[in-house]
Amino acid sequence: MNTVKDFQILINEAVARLDFPLQPVELYEPITYIMSIGGKRMRPVLLLMACELFGGDAGQAVQPALAIEVFHNFSLVHDDIMDKAPLRRGKATVHEKWNQNIAILSGDVMLVEAYKLMMQVDDHLLRPVLNIFSNTAVGVCEGQQFDMNFEQTIHVSNEEYLNMIRLKTAVLLGCALKIGALIGGASEQDAELLCQFGERLGVAFQLQDDILDVYGNPEKFGKQVGGDIIANKKTYLLIKALELAQDKQANQLNYWLNAGDFANAEKVNAVTRIYNDLNIKAHAEQAMQQCTDEAFEALSKIQLSDERKQYLRDFADSLMVREN
Amino acid sequence: MNTVKDFQILINEAVARLDFPLQPVELYEPITYIMSIGGKRMRPVLLLMACELFGGDAGQAVQPALAIEVFHNFSLVHDDIMDKAPLRRGKATVHEKWNQNIAILSGDVMLVEAYKLMMQVDDHLLRPVLNIFSNTAVGVCEGQQFDMNFEQTIHVSNEEYLNMIRLKTAVLLGCALKIGALIGGASEQDAELLCQFGERLGVAFQLQDDILDVYGNPEKFGKQVGGDIIANKKTYLLIKALELAQDKQANQLNYWLNAGDFANAEKVNAVTRIYNDLNIKAHAEQAMQQCTDEAFEALSKIQLSDERKQYLRDFADSLMVREN
Repeated sequence: MNTVKDFQILINEAVARLDFPLQPVELYEPITYIMSIGGKRMRPVLLLMACELFGGDAGQAVQPALAIEVFHNFSLVHDDIMDKAPLRRGKATVHEKWNQNIAILSGDVMLVEAYKLMMQVDDHLLRPVLNIFSNTAVGVCEGQQFDMNFEQTIHVSNEEYLNMIRLKTAVLLGCALKIGALIGGASEQDAELLCQFGERLGVAFQLQDDILDVYGNPEKFGKQVGGDIIANKKTYLLIKALELAQDKQANQLNYWLNAGDFANAEKVNAVTRIYNDLNIKAHAEQAMQQCTDEAFEALSKIQLSDERKQYLRDFADSLMVREN
Repeated sequence: MNTVKDFQILINEAVARLDFPLQPVELYEPITYIMSIGGKRMRPVLLLMACELFGGDAGQAVQPALAIEVFHNFSLVHDDIMDKAPLRRGKATVHEKWNQNIAILSGDVMLVEAYKLMMQVDDHLLRPVLNIFSNTAVGVCEGQQFDMNFEQTIHVSNEEYLNMIRLKTAVLLGCALKIGALIGGASEQDAELLCQFGERLGVAFQLQDDILDVYGNPEKFGKQVGGDIIANKKTYLLIKALELAQDKQANQLNYWLNAGDFANAEKVNAVTRIYNDLNIKAHAEQAMQQCTDEAFEALSKIQLSDERKQYLRDFADSLMVREN
């Protein structure tokens, strides 16, 4: 098996080779820009990895892997408009660097280009691969809509929240693994199990992010600890706290959720204290553990050698113990 | 052959049967809304017509025809955001009725849904049909970008203008005809000729629109005559006038293009007088005639009975003598 690093190199080279028309420059420059500022390219790596796990040649799966990355970047460009985000990976977002119309339209072209790249599979895989991809694409859009809705909604259940993060972030991981597995020659059943593995792990990963945002080591976490608390972001932790808090704790929590003027550190400390009193971290860790268990349960059913399953377990572990 | 009316009924019924998930309602309601406010559904009709012309069963082509209509509506929803248009077909645009984020995201889903519908063709057509569709989709986005660029550009040539309207409006007509022809069993060569026929006719149709905006009968045209002149819209007529005007005429034209405060009727009359002096209407009609000739030239090369070609000629004539 190639290493994650090897797969990343394959993808980086393919991104560098992406060749768009010169005109209209306003349409294609943003695509080259957003693709070049990178990130870890975890999704296309997963596709290549899945392909090789089932005995396929990762080199033959580079274009579909690139499709996943182009799609992911399309969703970032449009989400950044909706979220009015000025920065992405430390650089100006497309709508900031150019303008909103250009961000809408170059995003649209990226979605089409993702389909063109995804079509570069053997004929017998074309229909199943595109079906998976289309259903995933719709799911990602649904996830973004639910996420925006939740900002305006007073009561969100953790069931709704888990479904939202599944759609918004996890289904694309599952999709990458499933398509890679099919290209590598996996049976439909094994490909679907690997999809489940990725999806459950993706949800666990997001829950870990929610936990780290409150309980992470600020030096290792890389983001401001307590950012979600300051912004009243409806994470698993806040939703659980709202569900469990009673009487005085409920009043305190609502006080901080509605406070207009506050010192950030004071709010973070006060809300964290409520979380501690309610044992919220343990609840969130339990939910995360359940997702991880489900992921490994799916993995255990796949027809693959123990050595290859270990490769996936190690990879999953490397994601789950991150920076804490 | 079925009539245009028959094809419209087929499409209207299929639109009415379109069934989207209930949740998130903010994502799917706008799609049902924009699809239901209709228009003439000329593009899907063209697809069904082309299918039947080559002996296919139009009933088998309804889903791909619907794909063309969903794609067209996706492009309208996103274009309306970019153009800040409050109305579409006399009703509130999606970003006005809901909000901009919803318009971006439901547009995105429509593009994916268009692919899902377009995939409902026989296996042997899946790849060629999706290639045509993807290339057309990119072309439509390029056309919209060129159109936005031209608003900010002082010098636009008529060659650039003709390419822009070809991309923005004509390629989708050609795409509909080509895909319909392939589904109907046409050879690749005949399908491509029919594509050319539709594309050239589409450009001619847009040029006719430019002419009617200045010279149309206000009672029959249905839009404000002179609207393009009032808005300084870079149409074939204005670009040609800027190319031909010299000395006093050039000064007058520039005066009106830069006038900040004017009575609409006065500007329309003055610019129309310059157009008349420069014989602009005849130039535009010549360009339109050339496109129509090219369309019929392509049609003449198609392996179809004279009777069927006559059907297409009659249809084209019905478009080209419209309301004037």
